[in-house]
Amino acid sequence: MSLTQSFASRASRMTASEIRELLKLLDKPGLISFAGGIPDPALFPAQEFAAAFARGLAPEQQAQSLQYSISEGYLPLREWIAGEMAKIGVPCTVDNILITSGSQQALDYLGKLFLSPGDTALVGWPTYLGALAAFNAYEPRYDQLSVSGNRTAASYVAGAEAEGGRVKLAYLSADFANPTGETLGQQGREALLDMTEELECALIEDAAYQALRYDGEAVPPILATEIARRGSIEDCRTIYCGSFSKTLSPGLRLGWVVAAKPVISQLVLMKQAADLHTATLNQIAVHDVASRVFDSHVETIRTAYRQRRDVMLDALSAHMPDGVTWTRPEGGMFIWLTLPAGLNGADLLERSIDSVGVAFVPGSAFFADKSGENTIRLSFSCSDEAQINEGIMRLGQVIRGA
Amino acid sequence: MSLTQSFASRASRMTASEIRELLKLLDKPGLISFAGGIPDPALFPAQEFAAAFARGLAPEQQAQSLQYSISEGYLPLREWIAGEMAKIGVPCTVDNILITSGSQQALDYLGKLFLSPGDTALVGWPTYLGALAAFNAYEPRYDQLSVSGNRTAASYVAGAEAEGGRVKLAYLSADFANPTGETLGQQGREALLDMTEELECALIEDAAYQALRYDGEAVPPILATEIARRGSIEDCRTIYCGSFSKTLSPGLRLGWVVAAKPVISQLVLMKQAADLHTATLNQIAVHDVASRVFDSHVETIRTAYRQRRDVMLDALSAHMPDGVTWTRPEGGMFIWLTLPAGLNGADLLERSIDSVGVAFVPGSAFFADKSGENTIRLSFSCSDEAQINEGIMRLGQVIRGA
Repeated sequence: MSLTQSFASRASRMTASEIRELLKLLDKPGLISFAGGIPDPALFPAQEFAAAFARGLAPEQQAQSLQYSISEGYLPLREWIAGEMAKIGVPCTVDNILITSGSQQALDYLGKLFLSPGDTALVGWPTYLGALAAFNAYEPRYDQLSVSGNRTAASYVAGAEAEGGRVKLAYLSADFANPTGETLGQQGREALLDMTEELECALIEDAAYQALRYDGEAVPPILATEIARRGSIEDCRTIYCGSFSKTLSPGLRLGWVVAAKPVISQLVLMKQAADLHTATLNQIAVHDVASRVFDSHVETIRTAYRQRRDVMLDALSAHMPDGVTWTRPEGGMFIWLTLPAGLNGADLLERSIDSVGVAFVPGSAFFADKSGENTIRLSFSCSDEAQINEGIMRLGQVIRGA
Repeated sequence: MSLTQSFASRASRMTASEIRELLKLLDKPGLISFAGGIPDPALFPAQEFAAAFARGLAPEQQAQSLQYSISEGYLPLREWIAGEMAKIGVPCTVDNILITSGSQQALDYLGKLFLSPGDTALVGWPTYLGALAAFNAYEPRYDQLSVSGNRTAASYVAGAEAEGGRVKLAYLSADFANPTGETLGQQGREALLDMTEELECALIEDAAYQALRYDGEAVPPILATEIARRGSIEDCRTIYCGSFSKTLSPGLRLGWVVAAKPVISQLVLMKQAADLHTATLNQIAVHDVASRVFDSHVETIRTAYRQRRDVMLDALSAHMPDGVTWTRPEGGMFIWLTLPAGLNGADLLERSIDSVGVAFVPGSAFFADKSGENTIRLSFSCSDEAQINEGIMRLGQVIRGA
């Protein structure tokens, strides 16, 4: 048996990312892309980072910034995060915080911590594709996380036991979720906490887009609601995953986890075994930039993305044929379209790229069961007003002709 | 059942790092530490990094350096690595290379790729503690990798099958290994290749210290030997893990894997699911520094560490009592002491810190079976001549009195 054959069964756990393949198309000249879902690089606080990296590499800092450091993460950065978390209703200490290499790493570690083959993970239909990719490595069974109250804890348990496992975690992005752009209201958050309490499972709150609210009233993080119920983060099942990727820079790979200390202690051991720590200099520089300009910079991004969202919503109203519906996100980067039944998002993408040069992501990529064939995800984060108007007009033409 | 209880069994897979706890002692004033095994920060190419990060964050670079990038790693860095690998007998292309967040991450991914609970991993007795930590998460059984030829493939298979698994990988650092400082000769490498071929298992070559040779003849990498046998890297079982941590900077977390394309393809998917990619800016800056000063900088480090090794070897000859033996490494950072039978390294450490203020790592930490009680690891990388002479003299006193 060859070496390749010997790990073929392990490889089949992971699905190649359809988004990743799509990104290769974005180089096509003249293409208008609503596919990416990445931050606009023109909005990076680049001057601030240049100054911060220079300070981090000043002679008196080099022995620290280029050296190994502790797995928990750079203490001043954890202190700054603790201060930010307190502002949104999550009182905690630095011991409740682990710095990760992006929140994607947190999802991998949480999958490793909680999931054994055959265990059940509850995820949205649709949900963040990267969460499925991270969890897939640990071979869970997926069940549909319902936030509409039409599933009981008992039905989840019965489904999990029928497969010989237990429900180990529920995962969701509660604010301006990728891919739908939707936000879960307070009542839904309370119901979810009731459900995970009954299921005795972890609740992973992916807060990657939480800071990017453009209008409407902020809903407290699920973790804040659970702390309000229980009195202390130490009694909470919710595990909050934050990220600097959408606010400061994705390329520096900086995220964090906030949870009860026993959870953080396990994740610290896991991180130590898996990559020792997140790059020291990056943590120092992100702390530097965040502590100087975080609020003002996020306000700048919000203003830019809010306008793009508004332009896209107006363009959709102007150009989409009857039978197409879409979400109206209060933040984030995404609008989610439902096409008339019978239309297939993947087929539409192929036609759209070929005939009108417009890209997006077919929605079925975000469904653990590969349903949602008649849905597509549009991102407005990286396009200007003219591109959005032109691209949505063309997309309307393609859908009409489909 | 509480959330904490629900993952207690998973947690028991990992052992808390004894080295990590030890590092906390190093703040004790006046302590002479031979424990760390980390590079001397005075030898970081810090000015070069300051200039490289400034270039990486120049206005025309920001949209790339702060943005998401591909999971495989920054192409110019992989090209540079391919050139370096060719120089040491490993012809390969960029498609044979994955950039990782330190070689520790490569060990984690390789554990994830190859090991299922009950599978057998062959490791040295002793071996790198971080390899055990990385593999432990995947619950292997360990067997002793013998390089002296006193174990047959059949005996490994029989041991693995008795536990219901298969031998999936052999792991070793062949040059100036952590913790022993020893180098495996060409004959041993050939025998190891024969063995892993017979076992049909992967062979992980941890080359973290390979560039740090101070004297003697360089032995070709195991991967080079296997390529010479088979004609192409695509037919090889050896997986080579490189690192910039010991040559340029550990804090930037940059390493790489070189292997046959099917292995790299699997690791790329794994990395994409686990943390998307290693920080873009760090890859750009390390490529910048490496392509400008790698050879001259490594020569500078070699000169400094060579002298410290020589001072420590001389001091050991002068101050160790009869019955203590030690390795004479041709490179790396470590000397491995064997104490008279009956002496316990962990007990000695406690006494040594308390009575003479000298730290080191007890050898049993590096044994999968926790044997090796009468061994200790000394690092000479971070101490000057006076500290080494004084510290070894004091250590000799403590051993005499033990």
